[in-house]
Amino acid sequence: MIFPMPIVTLTTDFGLNDEYVGVMKGVILSVNPAATIVDITHNIEPQDLISAAYLIKSFYAFFPKNTIHVVVVDPGVGSDRTILAAGINDYIFLAPNNGVLSLLLKEGAFQCGVLVENSEYFLSSVSRTFHGRDIFASVAAHLSKGRKLKDLGTEINQANLISLSIDGPSVSKKGELHGSVISVDRFGNLITNIDEQTFERFCSENPGKQPKVIIGNHKAKGPVGAYSAVRPGQLLSIIGSRGLLEIGVNQGSAKQYLSAAKGDAVTILLV
Amino acid sequence: MIFPMPIVTLTTDFGLNDEYVGVMKGVILSVNPAATIVDITHNIEPQDLISAAYLIKSFYAFFPKNTIHVVVVDPGVGSDRTILAAGINDYIFLAPNNGVLSLLLKEGAFQCGVLVENSEYFLSSVSRTFHGRDIFASVAAHLSKGRKLKDLGTEINQANLISLSIDGPSVSKKGELHGSVISVDRFGNLITNIDEQTFERFCSENPGKQPKVIIGNHKAKGPVGAYSAVRPGQLLSIIGSRGLLEIGVNQGSAKQYLSAAKGDAVTILLV
Amino acid sequence: MIFPMPIVTLTTDFGLNDEYVGVMKGVILSVNPAATIVDITHNIEPQDLISAAYLIKSFYAFFPKNTIHVVVVDPGVGSDRTILAAGINDYIFLAPNNGVLSLLLKEGAFQCGVLVENSEYFLSSVSRTFHGRDIFASVAAHLSKGRKLKDLGTEINQANLISLSIDGPSVSKKGELHGSVISVDRFGNLITNIDEQTFERFCSENPGKQPKVIIGNHKAKGPVGAYSAVRPGQLLSIIGSRGLLEIGVNQGSAKQYLSAAKGDAVTILLV
Repeated sequence: MIFPMPIVTLTTDFGLNDEYVGVMKGVILSVNPAATIVDITHNIEPQDLISAAYLIKSFYAFFPKNTIHVVVVDPGVGSDRTILAAGINDYIFLAPNNGVLSLLLKEGAFQCGVLVENSEYFLSSVSRTFHGRDIFASVAAHLSKGRKLKDLGTEINQANLISLSIDGPSVSKKGELHGSVISVDRFGNLITNIDEQTFERFCSENPGKQPKVIIGNHKAKGPVGAYSAVRPGQLLSIIGSRGLLEIGVNQGSAKQYLSAAKGDAVTILLV
Repeated sequence: MIFPMPIVTLTTDFGLNDEYVGVMKGVILSVNPAATIVDITHNIEPQDLISAAYLIKSFYAFFPKNTIHVVVVDPGVGSDRTILAAGINDYIFLAPNNGVLSLLLKEGAFQCGVLVENSEYFLSSVSRTFHGRDIFASVAAHLSKGRKLKDLGTEINQANLISLSIDGPSVSKKGELHGSVISVDRFGNLITNIDEQTFERFCSENPGKQPKVIIGNHKAKGPVGAYSAVRPGQLLSIIGSRGLLEIGVNQGSAKQYLSAAKGDAVTILLV
Repeated sequence: MIFPMPIVTLTTDFGLNDEYVGVMKGVILSVNPAATIVDITHNIEPQDLISAAYLIKSFYAFFPKNTIHVVVVDPGVGSDRTILAAGINDYIFLAPNNGVLSLLLKEGAFQCGVLVENSEYFLSSVSRTFHGRDIFASVAAHLSKGRKLKDLGTEINQANLISLSIDGPSVSKKGELHGSVISVDRFGNLITNIDEQTFERFCSENPGKQPKVIIGNHKAKGPVGAYSAVRPGQLLSIIGSRGLLEIGVNQGSAKQYLSAAKGDAVTILLV
């Protein structure tokens, strides 16, 4: 047994109104009564793989190495889609093989992966609609007790994984950096797909010029160092806690200020 | 002390905006610092005993035997309604004696039950509005430390429990099986009160005929073996993870597709 | 090491849709794998210090002494606002020094306090937008392992803390007790800022008269001893589980009945 025992985290689109999440925990604790289980969120929009793909990058590394991150956003449940267990950057990820780990794999080292096939580690009866309970929870619990990936099924190479095509930020012919809003948080902060590295490289390639952050018809101040760098109620841009450019309002909501939504375009000019 | 220590699960209509659930956990951990507490859901519609009654059946058996399942949906709090602690199918249930366990008791073996009266196991001061905190949490924690049911109060027979009258599916004179939608999940799946056994018996009594699942003016394909048996966006029926007939849409929402809601009629014809 | 290890509770306005809460738990468990973490709520209205101030009073004392209560409602994150760790009534509170503990401090003994400055107990990289993760979670975990307050930074006196001005109930020249609704719970109960002590003192100063609870154009029966003291659907007042006067409807919602909202005036007459 590994000590201390690895944590199991859960990220799903199951919501909190039904028994789905609780029952997954029952299955985990039935296999491993000493498991530590942490909810990341269960409010991914139903079947929204892209949001989940971004979210995974934002939390996994804040857990101890060897943590088992379970992701169940699974529009293909019951079809012939496969299930992946993979070692990435010294963490274990258990997810449908549907591309939900694509963004993570762009930055993280794929260390090993298997297709989860060994029903010895599933519930004895597997439904066609709730693999989160019947497979993912049970397999995660066995992993948390020290079961090795190779015991779960046949090895798979990174090249053979299903991949999602997700647009990143890009520089236009006119020399503008184009990105978009990928997520809106509870404070109304608009989180873009423009990461700090891309932003800084873009700026450094144009020395002597200043970036101007445009969303809709508005210019957002900054990027600033802190919300409080602008007056309450004023629009700003900032490198947020995910290392991504965010549009916010000091002590307010950029979502309301701009009537903004996921997918809105964000442009960086240099002037 | 029982080892490993039993889990305590919580199912309430308290929601997650207030302190109510957190404070219950504080009480439990004050009595038993080593307790493992699992939330099932706190989003039962306020005082909706029937939804809670169905929900209980869907999760309890996925936990280890001896788990203490606490259910606080309690419109009669502060009145003279009693509180029940019961051993059913090798689990312990702690709930108001208001019928919320009625459906469970139709399928589960009632092993023993007491009316919870011994204030030695309550908080020292009991409010008239929040027995979840002052009685249920405290008693559950004592049970998790090995306290016996018989220490909590006077024995009660199953026949003397308050019972809820909940309509199940029924066969009409025309030979149609009539049920209704009891729950709509986050994916828009419509969960009916028609269980797999009833459905199969109904079909097997009419050999050579095929079932046709009707909701509103629509026919739902199936029951199919998996969502993916129909095209994305198409209406289907399936035996879901609760062992109940569900109406769904592959990669979509039956709730939206049909503008459906809890209580809607579902009919099975044989043709 | 303190044994049993103190519990860490979390109260924030982060919501449950993003990774924020999960990532805080990852940081805590990275520092202290054996930590017991309890969510109070994460649904405080964004940046609503006053609601948080009331909420804190309602739950803290139901946890074991030495519990570490972390409160992150932090409109000033990234500015020069300081962070407070304080011993109050034998509990430890970790919160922005923005007045969110003001109401607690009116009733609780301030035992000691420090401004949290020692970055040895922070994450190695501190963002300007998410101190919940980078400072609060990490510091709380160190506290849960037995780290002393004085190790975290310089001492501060109660007199030097930032304080919020929050209106309490008051008696008008006409001899009426005026309060307001501070919170509406999931059942539609309207929780006022009139505490039991104030209410009883007000009544006892006018012996022989009876209190009449007025909200809008309605009279609420009571204060009654239990919801069931009135007929289902009838408006009532009651001393609720927080020790505050509440307006409710037996088996219904006072919020709906009255179209009431936070901030509405409540008046007690003596007749």
